[in-house]
Amino acid sequence: MTNQGNNLDKWYGHYADRTGGLAASEVRALFAVASRPEVVSLAGGMPYVSALPQDLVTSAMERVMRDNGPVALQYGSGQGMPALREHILEVMALEGIRGSVDDIVVTTGSQHALELVTKLFINPGDVVLAEGPSYVTAMVVFKSFQADIQHVPMDDYGLIPEALREHIARLRADGKTLKFLYTVPTFSNPAGVTLTWERRLEILEICRANNILVLEDNPYGLLYFDGQPPHAMRSVEEEGVIYLGTFSKTLAPGFRVGWVLAPHAIREKLILANEAAVLSPSSFTQHVIAEYLSTADWKAQIDTFRGVYRERRDAMLTALDDYLPDLSWTHPTGGFYVWVTLPDNLDSKSMLPRAVKELVAYTPGTAFYADGGGRNKMRLAFCYPTPDFIREGIRRLSTVINGELELLSTFSQTAPLPVVRPEPTMINPPANLG
Amino acid sequence: MTNQGNNLDKWYGHYADRTGGLAASEVRALFAVASRPEVVSLAGGMPYVSALPQDLVTSAMERVMRDNGPVALQYGSGQGMPALREHILEVMALEGIRGSVDDIVVTTGSQHALELVTKLFINPGDVVLAEGPSYVTAMVVFKSFQADIQHVPMDDYGLIPEALREHIARLRADGKTLKFLYTVPTFSNPAGVTLTWERRLEILEICRANNILVLEDNPYGLLYFDGQPPHAMRSVEEEGVIYLGTFSKTLAPGFRVGWVLAPHAIREKLILANEAAVLSPSSFTQHVIAEYLSTADWKAQIDTFRGVYRERRDAMLTALDDYLPDLSWTHPTGGFYVWVTLPDNLDSKSMLPRAVKELVAYTPGTAFYADGGGRNKMRLAFCYPTPDFIREGIRRLSTVINGELELLSTFSQTAPLPVVRPEPTMINPPANLG
Repeated sequence: MTNQGNNLDKWYGHYADRTGGLAASEVRALFAVASRPEVVSLAGGMPYVSALPQDLVTSAMERVMRDNGPVALQYGSGQGMPALREHILEVMALEGIRGSVDDIVVTTGSQHALELVTKLFINPGDVVLAEGPSYVTAMVVFKSFQADIQHVPMDDYGLIPEALREHIARLRADGKTLKFLYTVPTFSNPAGVTLTWERRLEILEICRANNILVLEDNPYGLLYFDGQPPHAMRSVEEEGVIYLGTFSKTLAPGFRVGWVLAPHAIREKLILANEAAVLSPSSFTQHVIAEYLSTADWKAQIDTFRGVYRERRDAMLTALDDYLPDLSWTHPTGGFYVWVTLPDNLDSKSMLPRAVKELVAYTPGTAFYADGGGRNKMRLAFCYPTPDFIREGIRRLSTVINGELELLSTFSQTAPLPVVRPEPTMINPPANLG
Repeated sequence: MTNQGNNLDKWYGHYADRTGGLAASEVRALFAVASRPEVVSLAGGMPYVSALPQDLVTSAMERVMRDNGPVALQYGSGQGMPALREHILEVMALEGIRGSVDDIVVTTGSQHALELVTKLFINPGDVVLAEGPSYVTAMVVFKSFQADIQHVPMDDYGLIPEALREHIARLRADGKTLKFLYTVPTFSNPAGVTLTWERRLEILEICRANNILVLEDNPYGLLYFDGQPPHAMRSVEEEGVIYLGTFSKTLAPGFRVGWVLAPHAIREKLILANEAAVLSPSSFTQHVIAEYLSTADWKAQIDTFRGVYRERRDAMLTALDDYLPDLSWTHPTGGFYVWVTLPDNLDSKSMLPRAVKELVAYTPGTAFYADGGGRNKMRLAFCYPTPDFIREGIRRLSTVINGELELLSTFSQTAPLPVVRPEPTMINPPANLG
């Protein structure tokens, strides 16, 4: 690496090697698209925070300022507020987890927990095993520390244990250093599937036998629609699992409060990494959440969220049945996402501009693979639009998909040049998506 | 690196190489000590947030929730809220800085800006030039990315340009890669000195000529007591300076909102790094600060802070004159800190337990050097305790220092064994530090 700049960036030669791994994600550009009100966005995973009664939040803040203002406005500890960590234990108990407040580290959203864990463990070239498909911005973090992301296939029951075993053996034979398995076992992002209890036990056993940490990311576990999912992997294995949780989906993402529950020695290093990164997570937002959890019926509020998202999931699955009966998709029993498989000859990424023209957005499947996979897949998020808009979005999507298929069939049969199609009828833009 | 664990940490062999650089800072242990109410802590740099009228903050929050609740509770952009970035331009204009809202990135405190910039630029072994002494937790970040920290001496007028020139030449001759100069030019932490205008220009010229970025960290610049300090280095040089600012000292650290103003190409990468690390900084705390800046007389509030800290600075300098006339110290014209030089034969770190026994705490000088320097130095923070407690703290400190000197003199003259000294009279612990 030289210290020469170039015409566009005087400091071009100054960056660290890892910075080469930081590219704009496909989801990032979509956030801009999705913010136009006339587009039905099935792209972003924004929780429907309007389902949270705002006076619950406002009154919690007022009490915090009245009773604890100077503490809430001050620096806090790098580990996070003890009272909040007590509440976090209550939240995790709902998924079968027992732990110590002492082993919890509060982070700036669980995204920052991903960053801190990756910083602690990954040397350039180390392997991170990840479901294929995997959460896009987790992979952005792994790449930013020059990890070698290796996907392990999943099916409707989650990660496939036998495939994990084979991948580990092959990578070990290739002399690779395997650090951890990253997994969203419950209502996965993007696939919307849930790892069965038997597979959880088997995967923990495989990782234990191979000395591989499990990084269990569980943002959606409490948002179940059809009965409780299996308990967290952390509920059966303490020493081999780093567990990530968040208040972004059960309360609100605008506070940026998540957490890690880690084996004790790792938690010690996480606190140091957290202090280096941010000194301490926001005292103020921690106080507000602790106050909310102390005084509001937060379990009833999660139940309200479940009802909202269940209705939207139903709307999406029904609309898919009605408008796109020839495709296949996953049937999530919780969370935010449906994963759709298009015909083999369709490319969801190259189709996206046409979809946006038809005023619907989704996330192309390739965003969720580090290796170019997912070309004919797409993630549809049902969390944010109302049921009517979800149905309308799927209708628009069917127009796009059917148009593409028609075009391809015309091409492959007779036409050497693109067919000029009439402008689609514009739908009256909705005034408000929420 | 092997994958073998050890008895204390099963995952010992799993950590990244950089994790070896993450050690608990000396300031960290002190935070625990300083939190005991009977100790007069001159150690931590906690702003005196009680000088902020809490109804200003509460009413800003109430308006945010009333007018913009669902947006403030939602994810935001990785660059930060546009309205807040507009206000940040107004804040920086007070220090002579002109820039574009487009080149500002909002971060989780300016600490996180340090982390992001270091992640973007530092390969293991790259040199970071830093004032000697330098802000301790900046150095923790640099070490956590395996930087080679090289101190450049400073005097009462800040960093010494000629020394910088010599260091650069020597390090270049040794084949080192120099990435940036880290500096707190105004009311520095810990030295409390301010770089003169002439030196600012000279240092910028040296860095420009040597293709070295300047990382200008300016948390204290608006907290001046005796007239405005020189304008920021960023005010004269745009392409070569990454500027860091924060609301932690002019409003409150509990919100964790700071910012970077960076050359355009760098700012682009900072946004990507910010998104990887936290998706977006807290929408909620950004909204509250933007609302506060829109509606409150924030410049008058900074003036209130100036008055509070000026009085405390005066109390500390007077008490040092009265109780420790034989020592030397810096005379800050703003900020939070006085830097004290002890007699050569005293070691401030080994003296600390005795000081805590006498119910006073400070930060030992060695915390602010990466190379073991600062043994007979200490940082005294006047920001948090009231003037009376500052005076009492310095009185206690004089007892400790004089006791140490007496002990050393006894040792060196006659006594082969430590003299048993009577228990010091206990001061009635204050109920509240303020």
